Amino acid sequence: MKTKRYAIGVDYGTNSCRALLVDVADGSELAMHVFPYPTGEAGIILDCRDPNLARQHPGDYIEGFLACVAAVVRQARKIRGFSPDQVVGIGIDTTGSTPLPVDAKGWPLAMTKRFAGNPAAQAWLWKDHTSHAEAAAITAHARKIGAPYLAKCGGVYSSEWFWSKIWHCLNTAPDVFHAAHAWVEACDFVPAYVTGKLSPASMPRSICAAGHKAMFATQWGGLPSEKFLRGLDPKLAALRGRLYDRAVPSDQVAGFLIEDVARRVGLPQGVPVAVGAFDAHHGAVGAGIRPGALVKIIGTSTCDMMVAPATAKGLDVSGICGLVPGSILPDMIGLEAGQSAVGDIFLWCANLLCPEGRSGGKAIACLTREAAALTPGASGLMALDWNNGNRTILVDPMLSGLLIGQTLHTTRGEIFRALVEATAFGARTIIQRFVESGVPVKEVVNCGGIAEKSPFLMHVYADVCNLPMRISRSSQTCALGAAIFGAVAGGSHRTVAAAQRAMTGTKALVYRPDRARARTYSELYAIYRDLHDAFGKTGQHPPLDDIMKRLIAIRTQARSG
Amino acid sequence: MKTKRYAIGVDYGTNSCRALLVDVADGSELAMHVFPYPTGEAGIILDCRDPNLARQHPGDYIEGFLACVAAVVRQARKIRGFSPDQVVGIGIDTTGSTPLPVDAKGWPLAMTKRFAGNPAAQAWLWKDHTSHAEAAAITAHARKIGAPYLAKCGGVYSSEWFWSKIWHCLNTAPDVFHAAHAWVEACDFVPAYVTGKLSPASMPRSICAAGHKAMFATQWGGLPSEKFLRGLDPKLAALRGRLYDRAVPSDQVAGFLIEDVARRVGLPQGVPVAVGAFDAHHGAVGAGIRPGALVKIIGTSTCDMMVAPATAKGLDVSGICGLVPGSILPDMIGLEAGQSAVGDIFLWCANLLCPEGRSGGKAIACLTREAAALTPGASGLMALDWNNGNRTILVDPMLSGLLIGQTLHTTRGEIFRALVEATAFGARTIIQRFVESGVPVKEVVNCGGIAEKSPFLMHVYADVCNLPMRISRSSQTCALGAAIFGAVAGGSHRTVAAAQRAMTGTKALVYRPDRARARTYSELYAIYRDLHDAFGKTGQHPPLDDIMKRLIAIRTQARSG
Repeated sequence: MKTKRYAIGVDYGTNSCRALLVDVADGSELAMHVFPYPTGEAGIILDCRDPNLARQHPGDYIEGFLACVAAVVRQARKIRGFSPDQVVGIGIDTTGSTPLPVDAKGWPLAMTKRFAGNPAAQAWLWKDHTSHAEAAAITAHARKIGAPYLAKCGGVYSSEWFWSKIWHCLNTAPDVFHAAHAWVEACDFVPAYVTGKLSPASMPRSICAAGHKAMFATQWGGLPSEKFLRGLDPKLAALRGRLYDRAVPSDQVAGFLIEDVARRVGLPQGVPVAVGAFDAHHGAVGAGIRPGALVKIIGTSTCDMMVAPATAKGLDVSGICGLVPGSILPDMIGLEAGQSAVGDIFLWCANLLCPEGRSGGKAIACLTREAAALTPGASGLMALDWNNGNRTILVDPMLSGLLIGQTLHTTRGEIFRALVEATAFGARTIIQRFVESGVPVKEVVNCGGIAEKSPFLMHVYADVCNLPMRISRSSQTCALGAAIFGAVAGGSHRTVAAAQRAMTGTKALVYRPDRARARTYSELYAIYRDLHDAFGKTGQHPPLDDIMKRLIAIRTQARSG
Repeated sequence: MKTKRYAIGVDYGTNSCRALLVDVADGSELAMHVFPYPTGEAGIILDCRDPNLARQHPGDYIEGFLACVAAVVRQARKIRGFSPDQVVGIGIDTTGSTPLPVDAKGWPLAMTKRFAGNPAAQAWLWKDHTSHAEAAAITAHARKIGAPYLAKCGGVYSSEWFWSKIWHCLNTAPDVFHAAHAWVEACDFVPAYVTGKLSPASMPRSICAAGHKAMFATQWGGLPSEKFLRGLDPKLAALRGRLYDRAVPSDQVAGFLIEDVARRVGLPQGVPVAVGAFDAHHGAVGAGIRPGALVKIIGTSTCDMMVAPATAKGLDVSGICGLVPGSILPDMIGLEAGQSAVGDIFLWCANLLCPEGRSGGKAIACLTREAAALTPGASGLMALDWNNGNRTILVDPMLSGLLIGQTLHTTRGEIFRALVEATAFGARTIIQRFVESGVPVKEVVNCGGIAEKSPFLMHVYADVCNLPMRISRSSQTCALGAAIFGAVAGGSHRTVAAAQRAMTGTKALVYRPDRARARTYSELYAIYRDLHDAFGKTGQHPPLDDIMKRLIAIRTQARSG
C-alpha cells in the first residue's frame, strides 16, 4: 500500500481564516479549522465616522496561520496512519486587493511600536472604499494620456485596488506612507512570513494580485511606468522602484516552512509553500475550473471565473474585471468577472420584507418558500440587480436598483423571486459577454453556501441561463484550491490540471434547464436587456413604451398556462 | 330672529350610505347617520370565481334612505328649536357608473320574484370590471368609425361605465337583458323612488351620470346614435329608444317626497328632492369648488375635479375622464380627472413592508413617521404611481408600478416616502395638463380622510405641486354637497354658488410650499416625467441612460445639505 500524502490549504476570508487538510490522491478532507480574526468587529477595524473604512491587523494573519494549521495537524494526528511528515506542501490564498505597508525588512508597520493602532498602517481590506477619489483620478489620468493599463481590468480602476489605496494613504496619512519602504498584498505577505522571505526585494509576488489589481503586465514591462505614476504623484513614482518587477503563478514555490513556524504548527521544517493568490482564483481551481466551465462563486457578491488557452492571442473581453495570464491556472489566461451584489440583495430584501421578526437566513428561507411556489413570468415583475452598482459588464458603481411591474396585489414572494431572477439575468449577461468574445461557456460550476443551500436559486439559474448548473463537491473550494497548489508545490502532482482531475469534482445532482421555463425566461431576458441597456449604456435608447404591456402579456400567458 | 332652515344630503358610498342634516345658513352639521348596506360582503355582492364582479342590491339603497334620513331627523328633533318642517330640501349622490336594470314601471328587476338573487339583475357597482372586453370593443368601434363619443371622456371607454355593463349583461345574462325595459343609474333611481317618479319615460336623469359615463352630449343629440349602437349590437340600438334624451344638472328639482316615504322618515310630504349626481361631483361642490380651485378627493384612488366657465368654447383637456357642462356646477363645464390608486398604494406598501404585524392604518402611521423624518431627494429613490394603471393623463389601465434607485441600504421609510411622492408627482401631472389646456389652477382643496389625517402627505403635495394645499372644512364633503343641492331645490339659496359661499369653507391651516423643497422636487419631477413619458407614451423615447446618476447626484446634494 502506497503511503498517503496530504496537502494543506489556508484560505483567508473577510472575517476569519481556515485551514483544510486533504488527501492529495482524491481531495478528501481530513481536517478543517476556522480561526476568527480577533481584532476589530468580526475581524475588521472600522471607523464610525467613515463607513468606507475597513482595515485588518496583519498580526491576525500570522496568528491565524499558526492557529489553523496547528489545529488541522493536531486533528489529523488522531487519524490512524497520519504523520506530519506526510504533508507535502501548503497553499495560501487571501482576499484582495488587501495591501499593507512594510518596512525595509518587510515587517508590517502595523506591528511596529510607532504605528501600532494607526489605521493607515494596517492592511487595507479589499472592501475599504476610502480611496474612491484616487481611483477616479487614476482612471481619468490613464484615459487622458491614453495609457494602456486599464485594458486588462474593464477600463475602470477601482477604489478597492492597490494603487488607489496607497495613494490615499499618501494623501491622508503621509507619515505612514513615508515610513513604508514598500507595500505588499496579504496574499504575498503570508507565504513570505512563513517561509522567511519577508525582504521586499526578494519576496515572491503573485501574478494574480499584480495582474488583476496593480496594473502589472509583462507586455508593458511590469507595473505602470514611473512616468505614469509621476503624473499621479512623484512620490508614487519613487515607490515603484522599491516594489517588484516579477510576479508568478501559484504553481511556483514561494519558499519552505522555517523552523520557528514549523515547530509551532507541528510540521517538519522545510515543507514547500506555494506562491499565494486571491481566494476567488484558488476557489475556481478548487471547483475544477477548465476551459468551457464558468466557476461562479456566489456570496454577498459573485466572482465569475473562466480560463482561456494562452494561445488565445488578442483575447479581449470588454467589461470584465481582469484578464491575466497565469492568474488562475498557470498555463492559461485567467478571466475574472462578477456581480456587485447577489446574496447582499437577498439579505436586504429579506430584512425589508419579512414581517415576522425573522431575519437573515430564516427570513430568506421563508421568502424562498413563497417564491419557489410561483411560475416564471406569473408575477409580471422584472428587476435589475444593481443595488450595489454593476461590476460586469457595465463596470459602473453609480447604477442602482429597479423594480417594475408592481400592482396592488404584488406579494413579497413575487418581489423576492424577481430579485433572484434579476441576479440570474445578470449572470446570463456575463455568460453572453464571454461567449460573444470567443470564450465558450458549456456549463457552470457553482460554489458557496447559497448555491449549496438553495435548489430554488439553482433551478432559476439553470432555466434563465439555459445551461446545466453543477455544484462544487467541496464546500471549501477556496481552501481546496490552495491545497491543490500545496500538492503541486510538494510534487505530488506534476501539473495543476492533474491535481484538479484527482482532487476536485462536482456533486451528482445537476440542475438542468426546463425547456418551457427557459423559453419564458428568454422572453423575459429580452425585457431585462432593454432595461439594462436603457439605464446602463450611455447613448443607448431602446424603446420602453411597451415594456409594461409585454410584462403583462407574459403574466397573462403564465397565469393561464 | 329668523327661522332656521335645514337641508339633508344623502351620500351613497361603496359600502354604506349616510345622511347629513345641515343648517342652510352656514353649513353647520346638526346630525349624521351612517347605514352599512346589509347585502353581501360589506355591502357588495361578490363572486369567488370572478374577482371582477361587484354588484349591489338596490333594495339596500331604499332601506338606506329610509334608515339614514329617519335617523338624522330623529337626532335633530332632540335639538331645541328644530322642527321637521324646517327641512327645505334633500339632495342625493351615489357612486357611479352604477346602473341597474328596471321593468317598464321602473321597478328594479332585482326586486322582482323572477330575478331575486340573480347577480346580473342587481346594480352593477362602479368597480365591477367584468365588462372589460366590451369596453375595449366600444373604444375600438368608436375609433374605427370615427365617432366623436369618446372626445369627452379621455378617448377610452371604461369597463366601469354604463354601456359596457349593459352590453356585458346582454352577452352573459340575456334573460335579464331581455326582461329589462330600461337601465337607470343609482343616482337617478333613488331620487325617482322617493319622489314617485320611477317610470323610465319620465324619470329625471342626471347630466353628471349621462355625460360622464353614457356618452351623452347635446352636441350630438343625447346618447350615442342608434347607428353607432347597432354596430355594437342591434339589441343595444333597440334599447336606446327606451332610455332618455334629456339630462339635467342637480340644481333642478327631481320631484317631491311622496307621502309613504315622508311618513317613514319623519318629514312632511312634498319636500323637494334635487336631481342626483355622482359622489365626487357633489363632493367637489361641498368642498367649495370654483374656477381656479382644484378639488382633490383623496381615497383609495383620487378624483380631481375642476370647473371652467361655460363660455370656454372648444375647451379640450386631453387625457381626463370627462368634460361635461353642468355636471358639477349648473352653469359651468365640469371636468373630472383622477389617479387610479393613491390610498390603495399606501395600503399595499404598508401591508408589504410593515414587519411588526401591524396592518392598515397603524402600519401607515408607522411608515409615515419614518418617511416624514427624511428630506426630499435624500433616498435617491423615484417611483411611478401606476400600480393600478394610470387614469389621467395616460388613460391606460395596462401600466404598472416602478421603483428605481434602490441600494443595499434602502429602508422601508424611504420606499414609502417615494410612493407618496410618486402620487404627488401624478397629481402635479394632472395639474399641468389642466394649466396647459387653459384651465388655470391656483390652489388645491383636499378632501378625504388621508388629507385630513396626514400633514406629511399635504406638505409633500404642497412642495411637489408648488401650490397651497387647503383642506375642506367639512369632513363629509359629498353629503354636504348633496345638502347644498337640497338647499337650492328648497329655495333657500338662489344659486349653487351662493349656497357654496354660505355653506362651505376650508380649514384655517393651509399647507404652503417650502421654496427649497419645491426646488428639489422640480428637479425630481423632471426625472418622473422622463420615466412617465418613456414607459407611458407610445412612440416617446426620452433618454434614460443618466437617470440613475441624476438621482444619485440629487441624493448626494440632499445628504450634504
